[in-house]
Amino acid sequence: MADQISPEQTAREEDLIAQVVQSFENTPDERMKYLLQELVKHVHSYVRTVRLTEAEWNTAIEFLTRVGHATTRHRQEFVLLSDVLGVSMQTVAVNNEVYGNATEATVFGPFFVNGAPLIENGGDMSGGAPGEPAWVEGTIRGADGEPVPGARIEVWEADAEGFYDVQHEGGRVYGRAHLFADEEGEFRFWGIFPTPYAIADDGPVGDLLTATERSPYRPAHLHFMVTAPGYRTLVTHVFVRGDEHLGKATKDAVFGVKDSLIYDWSRHSADEPTPDGRDLQGKPWAGLHFDVVLAPGQAVDYAALME
Amino acid sequence: MADQISPEQTAREEDLIAQVVQSFENTPDERMKYLLQELVKHVHSYVRTVRLTEAEWNTAIEFLTRVGHATTRHRQEFVLLSDVLGVSMQTVAVNNEVYGNATEATVFGPFFVNGAPLIENGGDMSGGAPGEPAWVEGTIRGADGEPVPGARIEVWEADAEGFYDVQHEGGRVYGRAHLFADEEGEFRFWGIFPTPYAIADDGPVGDLLTATERSPYRPAHLHFMVTAPGYRTLVTHVFVRGDEHLGKATKDAVFGVKDSLIYDWSRHSADEPTPDGRDLQGKPWAGLHFDVVLAPGQAVDYAALME
Ligand SMILES: [Cu+2]
Ligand SMILES: [Fe+3]
Ligand SMILES: [Fe+3]
Repeated sequence: MADQISPEQTAREEDLIAQVVQSFENTPDERMKYLLQELVKHVHSYVRTVRLTEAEWNTAIEFLTRVGHATTRHRQEFVLLSDVLGVSMQTVAVNNEVYGNATEATVFGPFFVNGAPLIENGGDMSGGAPGEPAWVEGTIRGADGEPVPGARIEVWEADAEGFYDVQHEGGRVYGRAHLFADEEGEFRFWGIFPTPYAIADDGPVGDLLTATERSPYRPAHLHFMVTAPGYRTLVTHVFVRGDEHLGKATKDAVFGVKDSLIYDWSRHSADEPTPDGRDLQGKPWAGLHFDVVLAPGQAVDYAALME
Repeated sequence: MADQISPEQTAREEDLIAQVVQSFENTPDERMKYLLQELVKHVHSYVRTVRLTEAEWNTAIEFLTRVGHATTRHRQEFVLLSDVLGVSMQTVAVNNEVYGNATEATVFGPFFVNGAPLIENGGDMSGGAPGEPAWVEGTIRGADGEPVPGARIEVWEADAEGFYDVQHEGGRVYGRAHLFADEEGEFRFWGIFPTPYAIADDGPVGDLLTATERSPYRPAHLHFMVTAPGYRTLVTHVFVRGDEHLGKATKDAVFGVKDSLIYDWSRHSADEPTPDGRDLQGKPWAGLHFDVVLAPGQAVDYAALME
């Protein structure tokens, strides 16, 4: 806070905070009381620290109003705002504390669909999406190294144009599936080599990115969600080392990247035989080895949570 | 923050904040950059302090979505939210720093109308609104005690049922006017004795008040805005000592009350002659003496600012 604030002025500002905090004192739910009282302290601290002008307050109200009106059944502009401020990712961080060498979590994102097709271990999750075929394999283990047989694995990704199936009309399903790890905790499937895409930037959040000279791009990634009884549900991505959107100048618009989640994907010419002998009819292909380590904990129903 | 957070976890959370702050580094407008970077720090501090759960984050997103959808051309639910969190009042506090014995400012509120009728000094601003007539008089002075001749005075208030004219259909104008202080800086007018009213509590902000057992009421008040060249525009209210909504149990829902703005209003039987000899046709009446002290500063066009 600016240090030229008089003691009388400071007292007036602090007295106001005390009044507002006090006003929530009768809240029956203890957690709600705590959340609101802390919210008051942090928001007031912000207003006082930056000495928010009335014009700036008004701009903030107008911006939130635009975000509210951009939010429809099909678009969540508040989530987008939370994403580009890193708040979604911080919430993920707080709820997925470091545990040994457990795989890091990242944002869930808006493109998961409950009830994606079941594929066999070794099957194809691409659903015919345009893109370079990619063979993905690995093992699901616990933090003590024990394999997790039967772990449920959800995978989803954008096509080679950077779009998820749900972003198209017509309801065609592609680029998503679920499968189960085998008795050794191993999994394998065909998908496609991931492609970077821009978050929806034609609304107020896009205007914010423009005004601050930020990129709307997310580096290419493949989404994973892994669930097994007795383990903390893992929601994460695998990124692609060498992606231009992992560079110094541009970063993930939603701050979902962790160094530990950037993987080397192998690239293969059409001549090289595929791991499972599949005939790709003259196409080059990619490969990823991704071993997952689950922390102990509870299964979380993210699909229900994020509905 | 809870102190059982590991150093690795703390590093992960702090690193994320640094990344988000860094992402705004290229913002061309220096003030915007500062406002956004501080916003990031405060919001992330909140999430980390309360260890916000993903379910709570989701509840917050849903609440903001409801606030957004409750906001229309005729209703500003975000302003209401800012009001009941004391954020509007803190913004007023920050922008109207203590200056000697200058009259304290309070919230502008949503019921000001630009271009209210001009009345003569001594005229009637009630416009026939139902209520007990009230004679209001005082002097506008600067902080050195100098009168401020010709100061522009806007006054507005709810009727005896607690409604402003603009809350009714039909466009009838009542309970608002502007007048000018005379050569001695003095003003006088007839209005009505003010009545408490509830803020709009049938939307998500009302639900928040209900869930936290807070009153939606504002104590009775008469709004003033005083403008004169060379002085800081004063937006304030006069409250009524003895109002039940000034008690310990219930408080102003928007935190606009200052002890220095609670005044004794005199009450008079119908027999007592009125100060200006007006015949009230057998009605009792009230009286208020309200002297205003303006801080030096600049005129602010609140009507334009809040549009
Ligand atoms: Cu803070
Ligand atoms: Fe994605
Ligand atoms: Fe009012």
